[in-house]
Amino acid sequence: MIFGKVIGTVVSTVKDVNLNGKKLLLCREADHEGTLLQSYHVAVDAVGAGEGSFVLISYGSSARMTEETKNAPVDAVIMALIDDVQITHVIPRP
Amino acid sequence: MIFGKVIGTVVSTVKDVNLNGKKLLLCREADHEGTLLQSYHVAVDAVGAGEGSFVLISYGSSARMTEETKNAPVDAVIMALIDDVQITHVIPRP
Amino acid sequence: MIFGKVIGTVVSTVKDVNLNGKKLLLCREADHEGTLLQSYHVAVDAVGAGEGSFVLISYGSSARMTEETKNAPVDAVIMALIDDVQITHVIPRP
Amino acid sequence: MIFGKVIGTVVSTVKDVNLNGKKLLLCREADHEGTLLQSYHVAVDAVGAGEGSFVLISYGSSARMTEETKNAPVDAVIMALIDDVQITHVIPRP
Amino acid sequence: MIFGKVIGTVVSTVKDVNLNGKKLLLCREADHEGTLLQSYHVAVDAVGAGEGSFVLISYGSSARMTEETKNAPVDAVIMALIDDVQITHVIPRP
Repeated sequence: MIFGKVIGTVVSTVKDVNLNGKKLLLCREADHEGTLLQSYHVAVDAVGAGEGSFVLISYGSSARMTEETKNAPVDAVIMALIDDVQITHVIPRP
Repeated sequence: MIFGKVIGTVVSTVKDVNLNGKKLLLCREADHEGTLLQSYHVAVDAVGAGEGSFVLISYGSSARMTEETKNAPVDAVIMALIDDVQITHVIPRP
Repeated sequence: MIFGKVIGTVVSTVKDVNLNGKKLLLCREADHEGTLLQSYHVAVDAVGAGEGSFVLISYGSSARMTEETKNAPVDAVIMALIDDVQITHVIPRP
Repeated sequence: MIFGKVIGTVVSTVKDVNLNGKKLLLCREADHEGTLLQSYHVAVDAVGAGEGSFVLISYGSSARMTEETKNAPVDAVIMALIDDVQITHVIPRP
Repeated sequence: MIFGKVIGTVVSTVKDVNLNGKKLLLCREADHEGTLLQSYHVAVDAVGAGEGSFVLISYGSSARMTEETKNAPVDAVIMALIDDVQITHVIPRP
């Protein structure tokens, strides 16, 4: 899974029937500290994400494993809103 | 999913039987602002895309989840025509 | 799907039983204009490709969607011979 | 599969129902010698990994092949704790 | 599929139940001429590969299509030992 921040919406009228009523969100990838990267992803929302949400995105066939996305031709889904990323193991510096 | 612009057609006479009658389109990848990138994709059209269409492409097993592509040996499908990409969350500059 | 040119054969005696009788072809990746790139792929032939054929390769689970490859542990298949790639939409230069 | 070291936890309250009770771990990728790389992965734990564990991560639909992850919309799973990586074949230097 | 040379073994006691008795091999990626690259892969052996074997590795859900790997949470399998790679189509130099 990868981290992302929701920054927008993709509007589409003509689309596959299994996409009707689905929210296609534009996400900017982030690292585990929340820093935004130069990479963008379009994913279907399965958890009520909104503008600015810090989310987790799952790719591939796993993107179809939510109620919202089953049978839909989508390869990315937002399947969790992130509260916090806790770094518990500190790597000693050399 | 990734953004693309349809720029051409792939013509093939000898192909897998499940590809008969399918439209194989050549797409140039684009970013969320519609700027064209140096990356090209061949995808089956499932939504009536035409020359110059700004589209959304889904990869992997999800590419077989449309009526047009089920059971076909294809790993990319055009599953939506894009009307607009709305950036609703502005990242403050540092 | 990606473009490739068939340049050789992979010979294997000891292999998974579902690969018996399958042709494992070495392909050099090409761009949409047929220019050869520095990237190579091994794919099972499902359409009678031969030396020098300009082909389309499908990756992932979709590679098992041909009669030739079903149930085989292969992640790439040649599923079409390319006659022509027609660029119909010209991007205006800035 | 890729190597990783568990360095943290992803906390999420709002998530897909199939993720309830699952441990989402943050892993830093490592090479086969255990050297840490600049790449991070979020994976569900299926084997009782803890802070600092040296683990093996499986991606894609295979990530759903454990009891812990079946039917869950996750594309990465920790499916083994690594005791040792034994290099048995030494490549002669030129 | 990609080429690799078997250079070692990954030892794991605590692992998913479907991995019991499976051989997890460390492979160094190679190109089609057998030249070793700076990329490493962990794959389950399905064909009796040993130290120094030149092998073919299949990725993704296809990695579960051998008797050895079915239902196992693994995303890479060694599914063929390579005898030879024959380059039959010579690209004329410009």
